[in-house]
Amino acid sequence: MQSYSFASRVSGMQSSVIREILKVTEQPEVISFAGGLPAPELFPLPAMRLAAKAALGGEDGSILQYSTTEGYPPLREWIAGYLNRMDIPAAPDQILVTSGSQQGLDLLAKLFIDPGDAVLVGNPTYLGALQVFNSYQARAVPVPSDAYGMDPAALAQALRRYRPKLAYLMPTFQNPTGTTLGLERRIELVKVLAEADVPFLEDSPYRELRYSGTAMPPLSSLAGDAPHAFLGTFSKTVAPGLRLGWIATEPSLLAKLVLAKQGADLHTGTLVQRALYRYLADSDVSSHLGRLRREYGRRRDAMVGALRRHFPAGVEWTEPEGGMFLWVTLPEGANSTELLPRAIEQRVAYVPGSPFFALPGGENCMRLNFSNTSPERIEEGIERLAQVLRG
Amino acid sequence: MQSYSFASRVSGMQSSVIREILKVTEQPEVISFAGGLPAPELFPLPAMRLAAKAALGGEDGSILQYSTTEGYPPLREWIAGYLNRMDIPAAPDQILVTSGSQQGLDLLAKLFIDPGDAVLVGNPTYLGALQVFNSYQARAVPVPSDAYGMDPAALAQALRRYRPKLAYLMPTFQNPTGTTLGLERRIELVKVLAEADVPFLEDSPYRELRYSGTAMPPLSSLAGDAPHAFLGTFSKTVAPGLRLGWIATEPSLLAKLVLAKQGADLHTGTLVQRALYRYLADSDVSSHLGRLRREYGRRRDAMVGALRRHFPAGVEWTEPEGGMFLWVTLPEGANSTELLPRAIEQRVAYVPGSPFFALPGGENCMRLNFSNTSPERIEEGIERLAQVLRG
Repeated sequence: MQSYSFASRVSGMQSSVIREILKVTEQPEVISFAGGLPAPELFPLPAMRLAAKAALGGEDGSILQYSTTEGYPPLREWIAGYLNRMDIPAAPDQILVTSGSQQGLDLLAKLFIDPGDAVLVGNPTYLGALQVFNSYQARAVPVPSDAYGMDPAALAQALRRYRPKLAYLMPTFQNPTGTTLGLERRIELVKVLAEADVPFLEDSPYRELRYSGTAMPPLSSLAGDAPHAFLGTFSKTVAPGLRLGWIATEPSLLAKLVLAKQGADLHTGTLVQRALYRYLADSDVSSHLGRLRREYGRRRDAMVGALRRHFPAGVEWTEPEGGMFLWVTLPEGANSTELLPRAIEQRVAYVPGSPFFALPGGENCMRLNFSNTSPERIEEGIERLAQVLRG
Repeated sequence: MQSYSFASRVSGMQSSVIREILKVTEQPEVISFAGGLPAPELFPLPAMRLAAKAALGGEDGSILQYSTTEGYPPLREWIAGYLNRMDIPAAPDQILVTSGSQQGLDLLAKLFIDPGDAVLVGNPTYLGALQVFNSYQARAVPVPSDAYGMDPAALAQALRRYRPKLAYLMPTFQNPTGTTLGLERRIELVKVLAEADVPFLEDSPYRELRYSGTAMPPLSSLAGDAPHAFLGTFSKTVAPGLRLGWIATEPSLLAKLVLAKQGADLHTGTLVQRALYRYLADSDVSSHLGRLRREYGRRRDAMVGALRRHFPAGVEWTEPEGGMFLWVTLPEGANSTELLPRAIEQRVAYVPGSPFFALPGGENCMRLNFSNTSPERIEEGIERLAQVLRG
């Protein structure tokens, strides 16, 4: 019974640190900045009720039937229109609907990565991406990044040195740091990638959640003929429990991704795609987004304000213009993993920095989520955390 | 732009023959026995409307939120109860909810298979399983099978000779042949697998669709301590457009599968899991299944009757006790792939036999689906096909 002989890639699969922490912090008395959850009280529940009812109102049963791997055509058109409005020239047949952008990442990794291949990532980067790359036995190589995001000169050097199969970037309100690349860096990074002819994955889950500052053009809108794919999701703008995202890329790569998805799960659910489409078509999406931005902006302000008021000298943090996270750097020598049990004792939680690094590092860092806690609780939680930091 | 360097496994991905055929046969004047679709007019649409409404009726928004990778606890309990009633001793925490059983197959393949590993399959076997195994660069080794299914002596020999990582079996109303293993074969096959200590995957999508004969115990109910996993789905009993299935297996393997699923898509949709659970809890599922069995049984009878009436001598076919398919064997030397364009000219379609074989073979075979065509159209379609066969 214990005789399983697993594939060698299984050694790369480790339980998500975040999920384990979430289990500890489910008690309501803990103020958790650890998760990456949107605020459920802001979900468009009444509109989704109407949308599901309208979608299920047809009489032909096709909403419960198998459907095409590529996705529901009207939804693909909606997505293409959305991308076109931000100058990404994707046609509807360049869209593959996925079960969240996590599946997009998995399918792309499956397609591109053989064991031992290098993949360039930010330093730090999204933990879920590291997990996926590890599961395909890629060698995730961190590209030096500063307060403005990934450094183009360092990227050029890494491209020459490691000859990676892919580069993975989250240019806007990056998870975990909240950092957004400026326009010049975007142009330079794309230029460097195009010269090296290495495909890049632009992962852009938080783009619509901007509370201040000016929108930046997506890397994909600057890419021209450079090989790339754009990963989008409805998890942060509508609801993550639908598990709906997409990949937009050029047709020959899309055709390969369709085959990979066919093997993975045949297609994404028909009912949920049609219900989402009805929501997008029938609701006032932009006023919903406005509400999200106002409320999340208040929460960001509450967290930044509380950090300024309560955190001791020598601690630094990012002050992001959007997204769901900010990133705290404690003085050299501090260890956020060791501090965590004491924080939980004080009924406050966060994610330690190390898991977001491809190589050892970030021991003195932590990620704080502000989207799923009210401003009052944020104030209280940051006070508690400040006490923990003071020892 | 054409510079992609794909992973070597991409060479194993080929567009599904079935999907390509389905595109040709979408015209309503074609009577298609090619697909593998349940009849949409039999979907429990009114009950699913009520279930979705009830599930979305809560006020806390959690139905649209991220949820656990393992699946919705009440649904896992329902599945465990269902398995227990057929003597599979699975506890709720031995269930992983998946996006259809296709995802279960993909996750298991990802976990077990390194490039070049052997996997034993029926001969013929489910096309979608061959695609998954190919995508992980497994070597699919067919085990000789006869009219009663896989041969235990041949299985024992293949286990010794190929030392496979897995054996894949669909013991009941197999796709594509419709064949069901008898009790003695089941006992023998499990014994042989247990002795070799090779895990088996029991894929059981059609089990509930029995129209005559006696239910057989699942292999998993006979397995004792032998390593195995059971793949189930709601696609054939409720609706495939939900994309809901499950894996049931022992806890240490399940924990690995949970990690693999976490990387693949975080979790299966919250809304759709809860809506299905409400359907299962609030509806008269057994009378719905009774209706399916009566109507599909009529269609099977219509097809078998029409074959007897119209098909020329020298053609053989299976007469399954359930499921959605039967399997036709033309005389030696006939080629069903070459016949297909002539059949489509006569406005009737089927799937040629070859794609269901891991190695070359089955050129004189075809798979016919009877679940998605009315008895009248079945009669008409089989007449047309008989004319094609007569040349």
